[in-house]
Amino acid sequence: MPRDEFRQFGHEIVDFIADYFENIESFPVLSQNKPGDLTAALPKSAPLAGEDFGNVIKDVNNLILPAVTHWNHPNFHGLFSTSASSPGVLGEMLSAAFDMKAMLWRTSPASTELESVVVDWLRQMVGLPVEFRGLIYDTASISTLHALAMARERLNLGIRDKGMSGRTDLPLLRIYCSEHTHSSIDKAVILLGFGARSIVKIPSNDRFEIDVEKLREAIADDKAAGHLPLCVVATIGTTATTSIDNVNRVADICERNGIFLHVDAAYSGSAAIVPEFQSYFKGWERADSIVMNPHKWLFTPFDLSVLYVKDLDLLKQTFSLVAEYLKVTETVMNQMDYGIQLGRRFRSLKLWFVMRYFGQEGLIARIREHCRLARLFANWIDADPDFEMMAPVPFALVCFRACPSGVEDLNALNERIMNEINASGEAYLSHTMLNGKFTLRLSVGNIRVEERHLQKVWKILKSKIGAVGEH
Amino acid sequence: MPRDEFRQFGHEIVDFIADYFENIESFPVLSQNKPGDLTAALPKSAPLAGEDFGNVIKDVNNLILPAVTHWNHPNFHGLFSTSASSPGVLGEMLSAAFDMKAMLWRTSPASTELESVVVDWLRQMVGLPVEFRGLIYDTASISTLHALAMARERLNLGIRDKGMSGRTDLPLLRIYCSEHTHSSIDKAVILLGFGARSIVKIPSNDRFEIDVEKLREAIADDKAAGHLPLCVVATIGTTATTSIDNVNRVADICERNGIFLHVDAAYSGSAAIVPEFQSYFKGWERADSIVMNPHKWLFTPFDLSVLYVKDLDLLKQTFSLVAEYLKVTETVMNQMDYGIQLGRRFRSLKLWFVMRYFGQEGLIARIREHCRLARLFANWIDADPDFEMMAPVPFALVCFRACPSGVEDLNALNERIMNEINASGEAYLSHTMLNGKFTLRLSVGNIRVEERHLQKVWKILKSKIGAVGEH
Repeated sequence: MPRDEFRQFGHEIVDFIADYFENIESFPVLSQNKPGDLTAALPKSAPLAGEDFGNVIKDVNNLILPAVTHWNHPNFHGLFSTSASSPGVLGEMLSAAFDMKAMLWRTSPASTELESVVVDWLRQMVGLPVEFRGLIYDTASISTLHALAMARERLNLGIRDKGMSGRTDLPLLRIYCSEHTHSSIDKAVILLGFGARSIVKIPSNDRFEIDVEKLREAIADDKAAGHLPLCVVATIGTTATTSIDNVNRVADICERNGIFLHVDAAYSGSAAIVPEFQSYFKGWERADSIVMNPHKWLFTPFDLSVLYVKDLDLLKQTFSLVAEYLKVTETVMNQMDYGIQLGRRFRSLKLWFVMRYFGQEGLIARIREHCRLARLFANWIDADPDFEMMAPVPFALVCFRACPSGVEDLNALNERIMNEINASGEAYLSHTMLNGKFTLRLSVGNIRVEERHLQKVWKILKSKIGAVGEH
Repeated sequence: MPRDEFRQFGHEIVDFIADYFENIESFPVLSQNKPGDLTAALPKSAPLAGEDFGNVIKDVNNLILPAVTHWNHPNFHGLFSTSASSPGVLGEMLSAAFDMKAMLWRTSPASTELESVVVDWLRQMVGLPVEFRGLIYDTASISTLHALAMARERLNLGIRDKGMSGRTDLPLLRIYCSEHTHSSIDKAVILLGFGARSIVKIPSNDRFEIDVEKLREAIADDKAAGHLPLCVVATIGTTATTSIDNVNRVADICERNGIFLHVDAAYSGSAAIVPEFQSYFKGWERADSIVMNPHKWLFTPFDLSVLYVKDLDLLKQTFSLVAEYLKVTETVMNQMDYGIQLGRRFRSLKLWFVMRYFGQEGLIARIREHCRLARLFANWIDADPDFEMMAPVPFALVCFRACPSGVEDLNALNERIMNEINASGEAYLSHTMLNGKFTLRLSVGNIRVEERHLQKVWKILKSKIGAVGEH
C-alpha cells in the first residue's frame, strides 16, 4: 500500500475509532444480530482481485459493526466489564507495525526490555516485593498454565523428561482450589495431564471464600492416602462474586506442607494499586506465582496478562529448549525460554502508553471510582425491599437479585429480567448461581462509566419489577 | 482521551507508521543497542501524574525505535522473514478498538463468525477439502498444543478425567517426528505431560525429509515393546531447511496403525495458494490436523495461527468446560469451547483486510515472486565456486555456506561472516547446523523485498570472501 494511501485510510480508521468511542452509547450493548447473519452477508470465497480499501471500510460499517457486542459500552456490565483506552489502542497500532516476534533478545530488544521495565513498574504499583519477576502472556489461562507447569517441575519427579505415562512410580498428584476458582485452572490441570480427578474443589464459606479448615483436612487426607499435593490455587476476586480467599492462612498451609502456591488475581490485581484496597491482598507476597490481567481492569486492550513468579529459573527450566537456529552468544534474557509460545507480541508498549498517559494517580482514581459506583449501586439494592444482595462487594462487582414478594420462582424471574435487559441492547448483565439461586452480576469497570449509567440500569430493573407487580 | 486528542495523536502515529514503512531501509536491520541500553534509559517507576502524550511519542522515536530489530526491513532474512502489510496493520487498529473477547458467540458475533468465514476462505485458497474446519490461535506453538491434546483425547484412555499420574494402566505414549521437526512439538509434548522421552526423533534422509522406512520400523518396535503410538507429526517446510516430509507415505503408516497425523505447515502453508506449489502438499488432506501461520508468510501482523482439524467435536470434547456465568441458551459456536484460552482476540479482521486488499491473485503473485528470488539467489550460489548450496530450495529459504578453497575451518568462517553481516545492520541472516556444517539461512518473505536486496546481500557475501582471499 503506497504511503499516501496508508496515510489516508489510516486517518479514516483513526477518525472512525474516535467517533466510535465518542458515540459508543448510541449502539446496543449486545449485538442485535441473529446467529448466522454476518456469515450470510459475506461472500463464500476470497476475492480473486484486490479490492479498493474504501470498500473494506464500508463493510466494516455496514456488516461488522452491527455484529459487534460493544465491550466498550459503559453499560456492558456482564462477565467483567473492561475497556480499551485510547492510549492503549495507539500502543496496539504501533506494536502491529513493528511486528516484532520476541523470541531472542536480539530479534526484539525493545520488546524484551520494555516488558521487564513495565511489569516491574506494575509490581511496584501493586505493592509486591522485588523478588517477583513478571512476564507478559496473552491470557490468564496461559499464565496459569505456566504456573501449574512450574509447580509440576518443582516436584522433581522427572516429568519433563520421563512424562507420566508408562510409569508406576507416580502417586496421584493433587491440585486444591475453592469451588469458586476460575475454570482456567481446570483447563490447565486437564491439559497438563493431571486429569480432572486431580482437582480437589474445596467448599467455600458463606462469603464464598475457601474454607481453609477443609483445605487443611483435604491435604492431610490426601497425604494419608498416598497422594501428592502439587499446588494450591487461592483467588483474590473470584469470577462469580469477587470473593477473596484468605491467602495468608492458605500460605501457612502451603509452607507447612511445601506446596506451590499460585494466586489468581486476574481480575482484582489492578485494584491493588489503590492504597485502601491493599488489605485485600494480604499474604499474596507469600505466593510462588501470581497472575493479574491489565487487559481486564487497567484499560489496556486485550490481550495482556502478567504472571509474577519468584523463581524465574524454575520457569526457564520448565520451558527452555533451544533449537540450533535460535542459538546465540549473548548472555541475555531470551523470552522464548520462558513459555510455551516461541514468539511473543510487543504487548508491553500499550501498557507503557496507558501507564504514562494516565499516571499512577489517574489509574488509581478510575479504579477507586468504579468501586465507589459499585457500592452505590449496592446501597440502592440494600434499600429496596424488592431486591437483595447476594454477596459482599469488595471491588466493583455487585451480585444481587430481584425478590419481590408474591413471586414463587425467583430464579425464573431473574433469568427473565436478565434476558430481557440483554436483548434490549440497553445494558448487558450476566449471571451466576449462588447456593442454587439465580444471581445477577453487575460489573463496573469501563473507563467511560458514570453514575448515570448505573442509574439507567437501576431504573430498568425497577421497571421490570413494576411490570411483575402489574401481573 | 478526548476525541480530538485521540484524532490528533492517532493521525501522528499513522503518519509515523507510514514514514516508518517508507523509510524502513534507512534503519539497521538488527538493533544496534547493547543489552540493557533501553532499560537504563527508562525511569525506574511509573510516573505518578499522567504525562502529555506528545512526550510518549517523542520517547518512541528516541528510545524505542533504536531498540527495534526491524522485522519489516526487506533485508531481514533471518529465521523466517515476515512482514506486517499496511492493511493488516489497519485491521489490528480496529481490533484493538473493538476489544472484543470472543468467548461466547453473543459476546462477539463479529469475531466468531468472521473467523469461520475467513479460515474457510483460506482453506479454499490452499486447496484443502471442506471437511477441514479452522480455528485461529495466537501461535503455531499453541495450535500444535491443541492438536496433540486432541490426539491424546482420541486415545480414549480417560486422560481428561483420570489424568496420567497415580495410574499403572498406561503404556508409554509415543510421538513420532523427524529430527528436523520444530521445537514447538517438543514443548507441547513436555507440557502435555508425556515427557521428552515420549518423542521419537526419526532420522531424515539426505534431503532432510523424514525417513519413512525408519518411521515404520520405530512404530513397529514400539508396539512390540508395548508402547502406544499417539501421534505422528509430518512437516511441510521444516524450519531449518524447509524440507518436505512425504506426507502421503506417512499417512499410509498412520492409517494402517490408527495413529493421529498432525501436519506442521506453519511456514509453508501460505505457499499452498500458489497453484504450481500444490504438489508439495500432496497427502496433507489425509491429516487429522494441520497448522499454518498467516503471520509468517501472508503479510498479516503477528499473531495469527490457523489450526485446521477434521473432527471439530473432538477438539470441543478435549477442551469444553462451561462455568455457570458462561452458560447461554443459543445453540451456536462458542469459541471458548475450542481451546485452552477462554477469550480470543478479534484476529480474523486483519486477515480479512489482507485478503480483500491484495486479493488471491495479489497474494499468489507475491509468494511466487519470493520463491523466484530465492531460486535466483540459489543460482548465484551454485555458479560460484566459493559458495555451495546446503539444501534444496522448494520455497523461499536458501541454505548455503561459503567454502573458499584453502580455508580449514569453514564453520568458523561462516559463523564469522554471519556475525559480521548481522552486526553491521546491513542485513540479518540466521544459521543452522546440517550434518555438522555451519549453514547460513537466507529467508525471502518480506512484502517489500526486491531483487536489489538480494544483490546487496550477495555483494556483501562476496566481499567477505574477497577479504578471506586477501589474508
